[in-house]
Amino acid sequence: MSTRAMALIHDDRLFPADPVMRNIARRVYQEVRDLPLISPHGHTQAGWFASNRPFPDPAKLLVQPDHYIYRMLYSQGVSLADLEIGAEELKDPRRVWRIFAENYYLFRGTPTRLWLDYAFHELFGLEERLSAATADLYFDVISERLLTPEFRPRALYERFHIELLATTDSPLDSLSEHQAIRDSGWKSRIIPTFRPDPVVDPDFAGFEKNLAKLGEITAENSSSWDGYLRALASTRARFKALGCTATDHGHPTAQTANLSHADAVELFGTVLEGRADAHQKELFRAQMLTEMARMSVEDGLVMQIHPGSFRNHNQKLYERYGRDIGADMPIAIDYVRALHPLLALYGNEKNFTLILFTLDETTYSRELAPLAGHYPCLRLGPPWWFNDSPEGMLRFREQVTETAGFYNTVGFNDDTRAFLSIPARHDVARRIDCVWLARLVAEHRLDEDEAVEVARDLAYNLVRKAYKL
Amino acid sequence: MSTRAMALIHDDRLFPADPVMRNIARRVYQEVRDLPLISPHGHTQAGWFASNRPFPDPAKLLVQPDHYIYRMLYSQGVSLADLEIGAEELKDPRRVWRIFAENYYLFRGTPTRLWLDYAFHELFGLEERLSAATADLYFDVISERLLTPEFRPRALYERFHIELLATTDSPLDSLSEHQAIRDSGWKSRIIPTFRPDPVVDPDFAGFEKNLAKLGEITAENSSSWDGYLRALASTRARFKALGCTATDHGHPTAQTANLSHADAVELFGTVLEGRADAHQKELFRAQMLTEMARMSVEDGLVMQIHPGSFRNHNQKLYERYGRDIGADMPIAIDYVRALHPLLALYGNEKNFTLILFTLDETTYSRELAPLAGHYPCLRLGPPWWFNDSPEGMLRFREQVTETAGFYNTVGFNDDTRAFLSIPARHDVARRIDCVWLARLVAEHRLDEDEAVEVARDLAYNLVRKAYKL
Amino acid sequence: MSTRAMALIHDDRLFPADPVMRNIARRVYQEVRDLPLISPHGHTQAGWFASNRPFPDPAKLLVQPDHYIYRMLYSQGVSLADLEIGAEELKDPRRVWRIFAENYYLFRGTPTRLWLDYAFHELFGLEERLSAATADLYFDVISERLLTPEFRPRALYERFHIELLATTDSPLDSLSEHQAIRDSGWKSRIIPTFRPDPVVDPDFAGFEKNLAKLGEITAENSSSWDGYLRALASTRARFKALGCTATDHGHPTAQTANLSHADAVELFGTVLEGRADAHQKELFRAQMLTEMARMSVEDGLVMQIHPGSFRNHNQKLYERYGRDIGADMPIAIDYVRALHPLLALYGNEKNFTLILFTLDETTYSRELAPLAGHYPCLRLGPPWWFNDSPEGMLRFREQVTETAGFYNTVGFNDDTRAFLSIPARHDVARRIDCVWLARLVAEHRLDEDEAVEVARDLAYNLVRKAYKL
Repeated sequence: MSTRAMALIHDDRLFPADPVMRNIARRVYQEVRDLPLISPHGHTQAGWFASNRPFPDPAKLLVQPDHYIYRMLYSQGVSLADLEIGAEELKDPRRVWRIFAENYYLFRGTPTRLWLDYAFHELFGLEERLSAATADLYFDVISERLLTPEFRPRALYERFHIELLATTDSPLDSLSEHQAIRDSGWKSRIIPTFRPDPVVDPDFAGFEKNLAKLGEITAENSSSWDGYLRALASTRARFKALGCTATDHGHPTAQTANLSHADAVELFGTVLEGRADAHQKELFRAQMLTEMARMSVEDGLVMQIHPGSFRNHNQKLYERYGRDIGADMPIAIDYVRALHPLLALYGNEKNFTLILFTLDETTYSRELAPLAGHYPCLRLGPPWWFNDSPEGMLRFREQVTETAGFYNTVGFNDDTRAFLSIPARHDVARRIDCVWLARLVAEHRLDEDEAVEVARDLAYNLVRKAYKL
Repeated sequence: MSTRAMALIHDDRLFPADPVMRNIARRVYQEVRDLPLISPHGHTQAGWFASNRPFPDPAKLLVQPDHYIYRMLYSQGVSLADLEIGAEELKDPRRVWRIFAENYYLFRGTPTRLWLDYAFHELFGLEERLSAATADLYFDVISERLLTPEFRPRALYERFHIELLATTDSPLDSLSEHQAIRDSGWKSRIIPTFRPDPVVDPDFAGFEKNLAKLGEITAENSSSWDGYLRALASTRARFKALGCTATDHGHPTAQTANLSHADAVELFGTVLEGRADAHQKELFRAQMLTEMARMSVEDGLVMQIHPGSFRNHNQKLYERYGRDIGADMPIAIDYVRALHPLLALYGNEKNFTLILFTLDETTYSRELAPLAGHYPCLRLGPPWWFNDSPEGMLRFREQVTETAGFYNTVGFNDDTRAFLSIPARHDVARRIDCVWLARLVAEHRLDEDEAVEVARDLAYNLVRKAYKL
Repeated sequence: MSTRAMALIHDDRLFPADPVMRNIARRVYQEVRDLPLISPHGHTQAGWFASNRPFPDPAKLLVQPDHYIYRMLYSQGVSLADLEIGAEELKDPRRVWRIFAENYYLFRGTPTRLWLDYAFHELFGLEERLSAATADLYFDVISERLLTPEFRPRALYERFHIELLATTDSPLDSLSEHQAIRDSGWKSRIIPTFRPDPVVDPDFAGFEKNLAKLGEITAENSSSWDGYLRALASTRARFKALGCTATDHGHPTAQTANLSHADAVELFGTVLEGRADAHQKELFRAQMLTEMARMSVEDGLVMQIHPGSFRNHNQKLYERYGRDIGADMPIAIDYVRALHPLLALYGNEKNFTLILFTLDETTYSRELAPLAGHYPCLRLGPPWWFNDSPEGMLRFREQVTETAGFYNTVGFNDDTRAFLSIPARHDVARRIDCVWLARLVAEHRLDEDEAVEVARDLAYNLVRKAYKL
């Protein structure tokens, strides 16, 4: 067709049409496009790099594990059974791929489309748009490439110019795969992140068993409050020994608490006996955020909170497929009141960094920027999840910068399960920051030399500093 | 004056100044500007088309029934008495028109200005801006035209190139005017919408009497829970027989419930006896949304919810003038928790479509796009009421597209009482969609052939599909 | 450096890059740039103008009193002790200035940077960017100028072309400095604003003592409800006699109430005895807003409400430094329900103006614009505090105009403690309004002659009308 682009991706993608702004954006982007990638928060698997086995076929690699993809397909009536969601091995990966391909138009205007086109073009050399007509071509080309040495996990890690990659791990994880990577002598920096939800959230599936297991692993009495806290502290130390610099907390809200020791002991007992009601469970999670902050002040691990998701909203799918099936939904939350107990204790501590994320964009200008623009411990994480998109990133800068500046933010997180999307996601983030900076320069609100310095800080320096890398 | 436009409306109105984007927007718009209009949700009156009598004078036609107009005038100190609001016949329509004309500057920057200028120019050939100086000219020209055959309701329906027009109707309405249109042999498609608020909302004026009347009409015992539900089901069938494809629900919140039959029977009893408190009334409305969803699964009627309005906020005006006097105010609401009971039951049903609207824009990116981007039954209605404006429409696309895509939205609703505004409103919606698409194309996020396809879907195909037309 | 601007500020600053829009913005701005400044709400000190003493050194003048500046520095680890915050006299102002200068990069992209660069350039003739390298140059130049007659408060007032300046004052203030200004014969218009928080908010430090003092000053029995109300009314009259035209109310929420006289008497007793719980204190504040509205209907003082701030969030700093240390944080609030009691009583009064402000931008389109677009008494104050910035101002116009128009807004408030920032702040507001109007003109939504008229109204006429100046 004569009106469409000749390639899947354009050198000026995401840059504004206005020639003045586009030229500034191009110049600033040139200064950051080739900086190494730092990925301090994400959900790739250490096992990929430990074993370095080839990635599977296109459907298993790209469609089946990506809830952004199958939630969109599902929303338009594609059945999860047809996509073989949940299957260990796909019976008919080509058929799954074809379903995806013929519905690829659904992703118009979405960030999924952006990163997939980038990967199709940059990694696999594909040039025609994915559709029913090109489904088999894509399947064949990608399948073939995935079997070559250049597409093994370690080779891609190097090709992507990754400097550091953090995974997200349960305190019950042995981290043997992280150990295996280290033992292998392969030059890389893949580190774990301490995510204690399974042992601090009473609503987490298997909470009691998890606690018992934590006790075993650490040889602490995890059914006493003090033993439980020691078990957590020693697990943090174990993570730290393998390079971990941060913790992460996925609570329903950002609520924190400051209970007396006696009250905490009593609450822990109630929770452990399974007698806690919804309010007490919330209070327990709240107290645990404060305990984690206290430990961070002691051991220096950077703390991250990802709150505000109503998990497993689609009850029938949850019963059938379990967690992470794409039916987690954001809810309105508060930070100013919720964080007050924790900040009253540790908000002014020198050796403490707390990075806040949100799914509720209304908090950017109202709560997060004012908080981070004041408390020395606070930093703002980049746009998360549904907000991790060109528009979402731009709204973040527009709503946050004027109150918190650039230097209370921490650069980009790709936060992804999709390893192949990492370069595309960082590229989008760098481009959007350049778009924002180009506007400030074009409107004479910032000089271009400053914009370049800020762009480099956003792409590289701030993340290293914030995560103590 | 030399600096002003030569005509009331400009061919490029609403298109961005940037020439690259403007040219793309123009090209895409050319592909959709002449598509027929489909109006699946609104508040025009079937009686106009049944009788095909001329519309009254300019003041009675344009000022008196339009709460957007008189709320703005009232906010600046114009008295409703001077506007003859509430009068059956205007004593001095020219005087009312003059008051409006001399205050027309108040509408600068509002969508009311946009559609009125469009109608003044396109329908009445007026070229000078409305003001005190041109008030009489306008009054005379419009009055004269309204008496011509070309300005009768049916002629305008045809001139506007309307393919379908849905009204909004009480279950107590005989729909005789819809029947009369059908019987007249006039080639058109004007259909009712089932809006049961008067018989499902205990706070609706005359609720008990309405229920009794419902029983009479349907020959069901509407004072028993099961008889009441049968009465509703048979009324839905009566509407369906006259072409109705959808229901609509104007509740204060989006709350749904899933009561046992016994609990529902008891609650119904409490409500019927007038003993229900605010919480029980809310629970009853919540249960009724779920009952309506159940019936939709059975009879296939598409369900719409328009929640989140604090009705009749201005107490004195309500006492004096009754409902719909322009004093309804939006409030913050929640969808994720509120819809959970209903979605747990019917969220994965194939034969069910639930279209959600909002007056709380914060829910676009936080709740509505994630919900609609997952549940197969859910679709997002266009920007509603105060948000039905160029900026509001643009914010909708910017905040919704990246998570829900284009295909979980349902095209445009004019949702208007002002018949003459229909072409202008659709034109604004089409232009703004083209503006959004032009930006995606200009920034190399979408190819232009795709943008054209999406524009046609948004203007015509999606609405037909969503409303089962 | 070759890429940076030659001067600190650019003639086209804040105007869009697009040449069509920029040219319109320039033309419209020419019509308003030199209009006199009206500052109807702010926190400058009458004493400056009464005594007309020179302002102190740069650190004491610019850094120490400005919580925007030291909150940003503090958020990045600068200690408040090093900034000599709270000190009556600075021991080492040059050292404080150097700390600020070397951290000036933190303010990139913030409104603080905008107004400081404007003041550095326009008032002090500085041309090189502030940094560690230029810190001493700045300190010396500014120090020297501040000692000249041209930099005395009255001279600057005249140079800034201020037509009216309102301060914000406690009912316990004698207003002797306002009287002194009047007595001095200096031609100016500096007026007080009645801000009764210290005597109507039971949570205000020293509330009981403040009430006793109010009784003394007014010779009323301020421990009886009726005497208390009379004391407030007579204090309002005292303020009015010195030119005051407005009151201001800084409550945590916008809650209002309509208690019977008996209930109010009882509540007042409970509050006075110190027995009121949090709910009762809130109810008391709510009732007091309604009482203030009633008095405004009687005495014609314009009422302003600035709600939604969680005051003194950083407990340790509050204990060490007291109020206003930059740790006030916005919270989500509601207006539609909260104002209902007050509006039910006075919402339709002719002689009543209530100006609403917000720190919660989500209320712009959802609540504030619909309310102000209907109630004749309501007007919307400009973007406040964290929102008083180019992006914040633009969001305000984008979200408010379509529903409330321009004429339900009240022009600009600088709302500042920083006297030197006044011209810059008004200039930013005028420029941003021109940017918004230029977009409407460029998109053919408004004619340019109308845009000029609106710009003049926003810059000058609306504020005079709204504040009855």
